[in-house]
Amino acid sequence: MHSLDPLFHPASVALIGASSDPERIGGRPLRFLLEGGFQGALYPVNRSGAAEIQGLKAYASLLDVPGPVDNAIIAVPVAGVEAAMLECAQKGVRVVQVFTAGFAEVDAAGAQQQQRLVEICRGAGMRMIGRNALGVLTPKTCFYATFSTFLNGMQPQAGVIGLATQSGAFGSATYGMATLRGIGLSRVVATGNEADIDVAECIDYLADDPDTRVICAALEACKDGERLRAALRKAADAGKPLIIMKIGQTEVGAAAAATHTGSLAGNDAVYDAVFAECGAQRAQSVEDMLDLAHYCAVTGGLPHNESIGIMTGSGGIGILMADNATQQGLALPPLSATASSTLREILPFAVPANPYDTTAQVTSVPDGVCRVIEAMVDPDSAYGTVFAYLAHVGLSPKRFASTEARLIALRQAHPGRQFVVVMLSDPAVTQRLEAAGIAVFADPTRAVRAVAGAARMARLRRQLHRAPAAPALPAQALPQGRALSEHEAKALLAQAGIPVLPEQVCRTAAEARLAAQAMGFPVVVKIVSPDIAHKTEIGGVIVNLLDADAVAAAVDTVFARAAAAVPGARIDGALVAPMVRGGVETILGIHMDPVFGPMVMFGLGGTAVELYKDVAFASAPLSEARALALVQSVRGSALMRGWRGAPASDVPALVQALCRLSAFAQAHAAQLAGVDINPFVVQASGGVCLDALNTTRAPA
Amino acid sequence: MHSLDPLFHPASVALIGASSDPERIGGRPLRFLLEGGFQGALYPVNRSGAAEIQGLKAYASLLDVPGPVDNAIIAVPVAGVEAAMLECAQKGVRVVQVFTAGFAEVDAAGAQQQQRLVEICRGAGMRMIGRNALGVLTPKTCFYATFSTFLNGMQPQAGVIGLATQSGAFGSATYGMATLRGIGLSRVVATGNEADIDVAECIDYLADDPDTRVICAALEACKDGERLRAALRKAADAGKPLIIMKIGQTEVGAAAAATHTGSLAGNDAVYDAVFAECGAQRAQSVEDMLDLAHYCAVTGGLPHNESIGIMTGSGGIGILMADNATQQGLALPPLSATASSTLREILPFAVPANPYDTTAQVTSVPDGVCRVIEAMVDPDSAYGTVFAYLAHVGLSPKRFASTEARLIALRQAHPGRQFVVVMLSDPAVTQRLEAAGIAVFADPTRAVRAVAGAARMARLRRQLHRAPAAPALPAQALPQGRALSEHEAKALLAQAGIPVLPEQVCRTAAEARLAAQAMGFPVVVKIVSPDIAHKTEIGGVIVNLLDADAVAAAVDTVFARAAAAVPGARIDGALVAPMVRGGVETILGIHMDPVFGPMVMFGLGGTAVELYKDVAFASAPLSEARALALVQSVRGSALMRGWRGAPASDVPALVQALCRLSAFAQAHAAQLAGVDINPFVVQASGGVCLDALNTTRAPA
Repeated sequence: MHSLDPLFHPASVALIGASSDPERIGGRPLRFLLEGGFQGALYPVNRSGAAEIQGLKAYASLLDVPGPVDNAIIAVPVAGVEAAMLECAQKGVRVVQVFTAGFAEVDAAGAQQQQRLVEICRGAGMRMIGRNALGVLTPKTCFYATFSTFLNGMQPQAGVIGLATQSGAFGSATYGMATLRGIGLSRVVATGNEADIDVAECIDYLADDPDTRVICAALEACKDGERLRAALRKAADAGKPLIIMKIGQTEVGAAAAATHTGSLAGNDAVYDAVFAECGAQRAQSVEDMLDLAHYCAVTGGLPHNESIGIMTGSGGIGILMADNATQQGLALPPLSATASSTLREILPFAVPANPYDTTAQVTSVPDGVCRVIEAMVDPDSAYGTVFAYLAHVGLSPKRFASTEARLIALRQAHPGRQFVVVMLSDPAVTQRLEAAGIAVFADPTRAVRAVAGAARMARLRRQLHRAPAAPALPAQALPQGRALSEHEAKALLAQAGIPVLPEQVCRTAAEARLAAQAMGFPVVVKIVSPDIAHKTEIGGVIVNLLDADAVAAAVDTVFARAAAAVPGARIDGALVAPMVRGGVETILGIHMDPVFGPMVMFGLGGTAVELYKDVAFASAPLSEARALALVQSVRGSALMRGWRGAPASDVPALVQALCRLSAFAQAHAAQLAGVDINPFVVQASGGVCLDALNTTRAPA
Repeated sequence: MHSLDPLFHPASVALIGASSDPERIGGRPLRFLLEGGFQGALYPVNRSGAAEIQGLKAYASLLDVPGPVDNAIIAVPVAGVEAAMLECAQKGVRVVQVFTAGFAEVDAAGAQQQQRLVEICRGAGMRMIGRNALGVLTPKTCFYATFSTFLNGMQPQAGVIGLATQSGAFGSATYGMATLRGIGLSRVVATGNEADIDVAECIDYLADDPDTRVICAALEACKDGERLRAALRKAADAGKPLIIMKIGQTEVGAAAAATHTGSLAGNDAVYDAVFAECGAQRAQSVEDMLDLAHYCAVTGGLPHNESIGIMTGSGGIGILMADNATQQGLALPPLSATASSTLREILPFAVPANPYDTTAQVTSVPDGVCRVIEAMVDPDSAYGTVFAYLAHVGLSPKRFASTEARLIALRQAHPGRQFVVVMLSDPAVTQRLEAAGIAVFADPTRAVRAVAGAARMARLRRQLHRAPAAPALPAQALPQGRALSEHEAKALLAQAGIPVLPEQVCRTAAEARLAAQAMGFPVVVKIVSPDIAHKTEIGGVIVNLLDADAVAAAVDTVFARAAAAVPGARIDGALVAPMVRGGVETILGIHMDPVFGPMVMFGLGGTAVELYKDVAFASAPLSEARALALVQSVRGSALMRGWRGAPASDVPALVQALCRLSAFAQAHAAQLAGVDINPFVVQASGGVCLDALNTTRAPA
């Protein structure tokens, strides 16, 4: 049994701070449970000693309750919470829900008090949700353990979508919108401050839960990245679609998030990477999340590819849907030869193409619509999903009856495809089609967006990287709490197997002359100083030096510029290195994420990173497949396919470098603060790190 | 009176091909008009000679109709259309609607027949809509001149939104969705093949129409760009928000469009530019179009700026809305000092910030919600629009009644602001708030998207460029039907006032030596040939030549490479030019759009254009203000503000060059096929064209 089982369907529930007033926070949950008809044992507790509360026998203390208590709701004022928790521990309660708000998010004393509650739980083997939680709903059993006024006159319907959210009010808004749309829910939980139970653990529960087939989740921040990753992968392994929102994405949003909860909002691009790696699809609005979750619930799974076929009686709508689909990464392959010839027989005047515009003719052919759809899913057809735009015929249930029956039969005959009908429709018609597994949308663009999200999730899950990552490297002790010099950084990376140039740090111009002559010309000279991170900006790099005199002069120049730009900077010398020409400049980096650990960054060099934010992240360590996907996810990587007659770049060499960098970061995760290899030049054969900046953490 | 008046509210209507069968195309319009209670004269015409059709006196010929006929609907088979048109001309009908489908979109004979219909109209001073039109609706007068089965049991409501669309089925879908949402319409027209009346002319009508306050339009293609521009500007001048969709945006979509209509879908980026220049906001889905149109209809106009304030009882929803708003270009300035201090008094424990999270406390303060909103619109407040997230309180009309009344009073007291309430709501509550000018949304993200669209439209309209463009240039005769050589192209551009380098075409290495010595070193050598457009790709450009020997060698090299790469190419010589260092490389271009005429393109040089599509278009000729806006609309222009210590670029010089290029293109619009200036280097002082390719049209 999952340790959160008593949270979602307890056999017995106590309400500590229960109120006779059905409108107060202590009274509402009791009223909702009674009105809903919850079948478990209910024990109101109030130290006033009232004999009865809302018609139930009441207890002055939890310890007076006769039987065991699975789940206790604490709705007493802040000052009484700790005493109530101690009683729960003594009683052997399994999960406590703390509805009381008003402290950890406000000051340090609150944070300490919250920590004491956590310790009480740990000591007793008890779990806690909250504080500042809005509660839990299991509509199937009418377990409405919440004080949300959304339940006033609006009972959530039972269904297969489970919702785990951090923000209670966000959760209320979501289940309110779902309920008004007739979308059923299996479980709803809002985790609030997450002093103990977090959204990740609730996802883990929903992945096991037989009543849940689709999971929706919403985070403001995540404290335990590894737990979140594991939960998302578990949902993917269970074949349950998972749609997730991360709010606080933008700086303005994140600033609002920081004042709202006690925790920092993470780096948004990192969340993108982690969600994608774990097969979760991100939504940008509550409506999009519900559209996609409902789509998955109706169709019972994800499309088997990203190819779609569109049949439409309206050219205009077909074009709109084709535009939307292409913009969202879906493909519209042409009709198969078989389908084309069948369609020519059914509708001689229509052009066999995708989108397939039936023209108004289709209405004069018996069973025209269904015969067209059937032709589009012939065995040669590439379409994982077929859309039918049927205008408003669903508003006339009688006229639509025979089409409806045949559509349902078609759906059953082709279990490997997904069918989407776009039309204005009577709710009863929609309900019958959806019960049979056919998704129905009114707005064509929303239909396409939901399918695109489902198809992307399916692709992410096919790619879930179970391939072995690069072998772990032995860790070594790094200097602490500083930016390493270029030379130190490169030496470390070279040990990790990343190609660097043969280069030499010289203390004098004379030494540099000899080094350059040994290397061969042209060479580059760069200042080496632990106090100068941005060498180019101070004129500390001089390129294309063709002879020894030029090298000697350049060394003197960079020493003088460094002294002028950063007075007192420690100068370790001047680095002499062969000059590299040609190739594509890229940037490889390590971001040490406080939540998700070492993340590898890849981007194009030059201005692409700063101007176009054309970078992507992936979790370390990388497998080769994941490293290649990372490279390909950056738009600028098109340059490496050979641009304007330049030779194609050695992408496998780049992939190797990324994997080795990721293994290095993994091995030194406890010591590193970050790595920038900028540029890493990818050549026609091989690749090489030309400059690197490693920073390390201060001693703890 | 507008020439389309008889199309939208005729005093008398004839139906040629009227049918007694209310389900046939010839029967449906009559039934809809009768069921709706249209008050004008109705004349069914059918050559069968029936005395009565659907209870009305019928006529065997239009010429038998006793009174004048403003508007005639033709619903006879293809073969009879021309005869019916001739009768209409003879009768003096003012507008003809051709519902008959099935020809121009199919073959050349159909196109010829359509042309004859147009000639009949022109000869008689009669207007025509169609063919393949779905008709016209004016709900206010129950003028339902359509055969769309959407009207079966679904009467459009009268309202202030006018809809002009090319695709009939697209129009049906839109008014179907509007009607189901309770959104009223003033007029609906679908123009079909646009043999005569097009969407632009309908927009022109709606801009004049006193019953229309907001305009929606949808195009597949546009044949007359100038008419569309004029109509869009007229709507802007009339202060009527205009939301437009252009379908066939992507290649797949455009291919579908090409098979659907007889005309080419235009270049999508060009449509973006034209819409923006004319103050129209583009929508990407029917739902978005309706959201924004309804928002404008409810609020009665556009927000006066892009600054928003958000009050919310849910931190989570506030963060989501802040994320959405920032992504969509809205600003969230902080609360004014006055607002902050007032809010501290009202809710001492809430943090005065934007978004402003009231916390649940607000429910315990009398009139808390409205006092907070009032504080946010104090006279110092920057917010053009204030959002209030009120969860689900609208579902309890009684509990909400006092807040509702105060909100409406607030709205009236602050006519310069826009108010948006986001909540789940009873339809009657929504209707009362919206009648008072307060927009209501259920989904927070859709609310933000609508406001962002309205605010952007307001900004576009503030910027409508009425400033004078560059003075027209005298046109000169250009060589016909070929790519000009670099030297020819630059000579033309120099005459137009665009800076080019002093450079010289040399026939021999010896001549090049002398030219380079006169210019000073370093120089560049490039091949000059009308047969070689891409010089770099064949090695025909050699840079950084430091002395005369190097120049001579380079000339021989480029001659040899050109001969090898393009055997038989005509070689005009080698161009010697000073070498330019530093500066930002940009691309200036002219696209001769078949619909909209000369369009100026601007983008960054290097890979930004191809990899990141970081280009923008603007109509020629440009004013300086518009040229500057064009530059700023390209993300890469951030480079010109001085990047990594480089000096800032001379943007005014770039603006001058763009204006002069636009004037050159305008003057030579009839002869030019296109211009590429690549690169135009913008320096710290001035800018210069380093390479140019002009192409001209073949003689007509």
